[in-house]
Amino acid sequence: MATEQSEAGTTDPIIVRARDDFRWESVPVLAYKETGRHFRNITRQILFDGDPALPVQWRYFEIADGGHSTLERHDHLHVVMIIRGVGQALVGDRVLDVGLHDVVRIPAMTWHQFRATAGAPLGFLCVVHIERDRPILPDDAAIAELRANPRVAEFIRL
Amino acid sequence: MATEQSEAGTTDPIIVRARDDFRWESVPVLAYKETGRHFRNITRQILFDGDPALPVQWRYFEIADGGHSTLERHDHLHVVMIIRGVGQALVGDRVLDVGLHDVVRIPAMTWHQFRATAGAPLGFLCVVHIERDRPILPDDAAIAELRANPRVAEFIRL
Repeated sequence: MATEQSEAGTTDPIIVRARDDFRWESVPVLAYKETGRHFRNITRQILFDGDPALPVQWRYFEIADGGHSTLERHDHLHVVMIIRGVGQALVGDRVLDVGLHDVVRIPAMTWHQFRATAGAPLGFLCVVHIERDRPILPDDAAIAELRANPRVAEFIRL
Repeated sequence: MATEQSEAGTTDPIIVRARDDFRWESVPVLAYKETGRHFRNITRQILFDGDPALPVQWRYFEIADGGHSTLERHDHLHVVMIIRGVGQALVGDRVLDVGLHDVVRIPAMTWHQFRATAGAPLGFLCVVHIERDRPILPDDAAIAELRANPRVAEFIRL
């Protein structure tokens, strides 16, 4: 039976040391997603990859200047904390300015997208259940509905 | 039936805004623990208080200069990230220097204690399952065992 390789590359079971550039020792910088093109200039690092006693992933995402995460929604709630820079986030029909240590809670089935809009990277922690449904992208009808709100229309990137 | 008051005071379901002093809007600064004296100069803020889809608490603890968390262990694993200052942590038989964005994973039934030893506050995020066992304090035998290691003996505060 083949051994499945975890994406999380950490080896010390106790401490994952941060470097000074928002990278962590022995933690690979991964593609945001393996497939798709509904995102731009974004990376992913897995800082904690779940345990039966704590079945969550704790990730760090970083969006380079001008980049964005996928505009998507899903049934699983997740929670984000900004730890680098400032930027903006769509959550539902709200476009929020977000900055250092702001906590964003994204409810179930709520459209959301993060963008690095301040000429600098936007980095955030995200805690999510290890068992979760796949994100849904907006279809034409959903895009039309989102674009009915001018503020949202201006913000979203597809 | 009485309504149980949550310790988490946040009202906006979407965003919990950070102030610039490691406090969050509408989030009360709580006692570290309700009882006991095995800790010193430490506060607690609950940034996310769990959901059926994400059954974890996400907290921020801050230890003032010279303070420390309880020396304890428990069956539930938890994960910590430093976001303010530097300090030291005992995990098992290791005394670690910890600093900005270091991630500390505390395995089940492992003695641990955090101390603000650098003349400044030490602040850290901690993600933990909402259902968890109560911490155990060291009895005399455990203290003797811990003190058998000179580095640990020098570090721990009871």
